[in-house]
Amino acid sequence: MEISANMVKELRDRTGAGMMDCKKALVEAEGSLDRASEIIVKKGLAKAAKKSDRAASEGLVHSYIHQGGRIGVLVEVNCETDFVARTEAFKEFVDDVSLQIAANPPVCVRREEVPAELVAKQREIFEAQVRGEGKPDKIVPKIVDGKIDKWYSEVCLLEQPFVKEPGQTIEQVRTAVVSKTGENVQIRRFVRFELGEGV
Amino acid sequence: MEISANMVKELRDRTGAGMMDCKKALVEAEGSLDRASEIIVKKGLAKAAKKSDRAASEGLVHSYIHQGGRIGVLVEVNCETDFVARTEAFKEFVDDVSLQIAANPPVCVRREEVPAELVAKQREIFEAQVRGEGKPDKIVPKIVDGKIDKWYSEVCLLEQPFVKEPGQTIEQVRTAVVSKTGENVQIRRFVRFELGEGV
Repeated sequence: MEISANMVKELRDRTGAGMMDCKKALVEAEGSLDRASEIIVKKGLAKAAKKSDRAASEGLVHSYIHQGGRIGVLVEVNCETDFVARTEAFKEFVDDVSLQIAANPPVCVRREEVPAELVAKQREIFEAQVRGEGKPDKIVPKIVDGKIDKWYSEVCLLEQPFVKEPGQTIEQVRTAVVSKTGENVQIRRFVRFELGEGV
Repeated sequence: MEISANMVKELRDRTGAGMMDCKKALVEAEGSLDRASEIIVKKGLAKAAKKSDRAASEGLVHSYIHQGGRIGVLVEVNCETDFVARTEAFKEFVDDVSLQIAANPPVCVRREEVPAELVAKQREIFEAQVRGEGKPDKIVPKIVDGKIDKWYSEVCLLEQPFVKEPGQTIEQVRTAVVSKTGENVQIRRFVRFELGEGV
């Protein structure tokens, strides 16, 4: 099958992968852009996993102020070099992350960071709900596990669906930036202030 | 002594106090602008103290990004009404506070918020220093008290000298804004991220 330069370009724009990688993926996918993207993402994932051990202490501290000062977000996203920190792809990711946090307040970046007491409390709430629905004791823990899993995907930033493209999680967006920049990229920390909350 | 309209105007610009208050203060100070300012500030202080009980849940969440994304500050400053939150005087104060935190990292807003363990640790350090200088045991606690007091003025935002006008503390700047806006104004909370710190 003939792979046109236009198809390669479109796949590059979508994935940020190198020209040869795009061509190979298109050949493998017999010209289907969607399947070729998947191939790239899967390879990208493999690359990203290898990179996540590398030291990342450069990057950007970035802020996003929403509703004329009623909501504010401060985030630190790390990469390995100052050079990548200044690329459009990296800056756009940092921007998207800030927007995500403003729109969809997470509790923390990743599962390991959710406080154990919070998980225990949430588990109690779900258990009471499930029992209240009259489910048999035997299957309660399994249903609760499922609910906790779904809850994690709401409170952990990396597991949230990206507000601008709900088909992807933030972790998938992050992985795409790792592919594009060729560096380990990590969302290190964030805070979100809402005016007058808890006053 | 004759108090000119120009003098009243200059005092108003400096202090933000009302026209009649400025005229009275100038008469009392026999035309000295500096002494009249002091009179206004003292009266303002009295007013500010009365206002600090009033509920403040409006205001602004504001950010300041320094050095192209190497340092970031997020701050919430409260006032009583959305109207005051939109005034130049309030916005300027919020800006100045953010700049202050970026330039001179505090530990917290006020003395009561400094963690007790941190104070205890600092006290130990000072004690070891003072004893190391061979000071007699009897006077050690007093010298340490003095050092702790000075240390508080470094780590508490409100006690820091304002970077743009080191003759004033942030608390004095805050009090001036209370006078200008006629509302209770409080620095509620802040965070400061420095790129790669502790990675």
